[in-house]
Amino acid sequence: MKSFRKELWFNVPSQRGFVNITGEVEAALRASGIREGLCLVNAMHITASVFINDNESGLHHDYEQWLERLAPHEPTGQYRHNDTGEDNADAHLKRQVMGREVVVAISQGKLDFGPWEAIFYGEFDGGRRKRVLIKIIGE
Amino acid sequence: MKSFRKELWFNVPSQRGFVNITGEVEAALRASGIREGLCLVNAMHITASVFINDNESGLHHDYEQWLERLAPHEPTGQYRHNDTGEDNADAHLKRQVMGREVVVAISQGKLDFGPWEAIFYGEFDGGRRKRVLIKIIGE
Amino acid sequence: MKSFRKELWFNVPSQRGFVNITGEVEAALRASGIREGLCLVNAMHITASVFINDNESGLHHDYEQWLERLAPHEPTGQYRHNDTGEDNADAHLKRQVMGREVVVAISQGKLDFGPWEAIFYGEFDGGRRKRVLIKIIGE
Repeated sequence: MKSFRKELWFNVPSQRGFVNITGEVEAALRASGIREGLCLVNAMHITASVFINDNESGLHHDYEQWLERLAPHEPTGQYRHNDTGEDNADAHLKRQVMGREVVVAISQGKLDFGPWEAIFYGEFDGGRRKRVLIKIIGE
Repeated sequence: MKSFRKELWFNVPSQRGFVNITGEVEAALRASGIREGLCLVNAMHITASVFINDNESGLHHDYEQWLERLAPHEPTGQYRHNDTGEDNADAHLKRQVMGREVVVAISQGKLDFGPWEAIFYGEFDGGRRKRVLIKIIGE
Repeated sequence: MKSFRKELWFNVPSQRGFVNITGEVEAALRASGIREGLCLVNAMHITASVFINDNESGLHHDYEQWLERLAPHEPTGQYRHNDTGEDNADAHLKRQVMGREVVVAISQGKLDFGPWEAIFYGEFDGGRRKRVLIKIIGE
């Protein structure tokens, strides 16, 4: 069994945003030389997500509006977590809806994807450097 | 390390629905000959889910009502994604709540499940042919 | 390829609660002797979650309030699942938001975590004995 590890770094300047990382995961897979296995891609921070969905800017706008409706940033005083001096409690909630990680099958040396699958980093508390972990195991 | 890959095809005639695929995943596991490992089951489409919960029709009705409350289909004009000519933005949102994939432990040649766990395909934009991927790795 | 399996048992006395299980997963990893691989941690029950987020009690209070707003326990008669004699339909919904499982990379014999990641068992229908499964594969 082979294993491969790589970190991706981000600094999303806005509070929230989505970054397509499919190409970087494909590059990591090529570097790994793994042909059959599983690829884990996860946010290493607890106010961010990694998820798979459509590379369409209108949908990303809809996600932004919808998450803000389900778990509003304001008023920040509605969350006890923010009593610690943070103002990012909503980001911890939004990340649970969108998920921490994805696991992707590796088949014949490729990400084994359906026609519209793309991998995104979802930032919910930006303006700082944060990481994603790619871990691939297989043969 | 062994690996095994299989696709399942669906054509749910209604807009939304849940299909129990536990038996098909068990059949794939038997065909794989793998006794210890991990089994990934994921929707290959971004308006569908694979999730594990109860095989109880009342609960599935509750999921349907609840998801429609969290992310309503109508009015379709509330979503920018639908400006592309689609009417399925809500399906992309519902799928994030229910999840893209499950990873199941394989122990002694079986899905290593608790007493009530069952695997479902969740369709949120039906009336077309769509796929689920089963990928098993182990020994 | 090596594999390792361990169950953790819980009996959360309240209806809902969060338990930090990071130390128990680390102990299982040490017992496995695995240095590079993947670690699956999943609830074996369908009214409970395993998730990764912050070990901060204010945030856990916020999760509790937020989940109760998204999927209220009362009135129990609003859910068809409860026609079966159960009163836990809301717990099946809350568990979908928080997730069934996490998959964690194992690198150099450790859980490959960012600075604030911790693993929690989330109970949404307590007062009974329930299990979590840890399955580790690798070398």
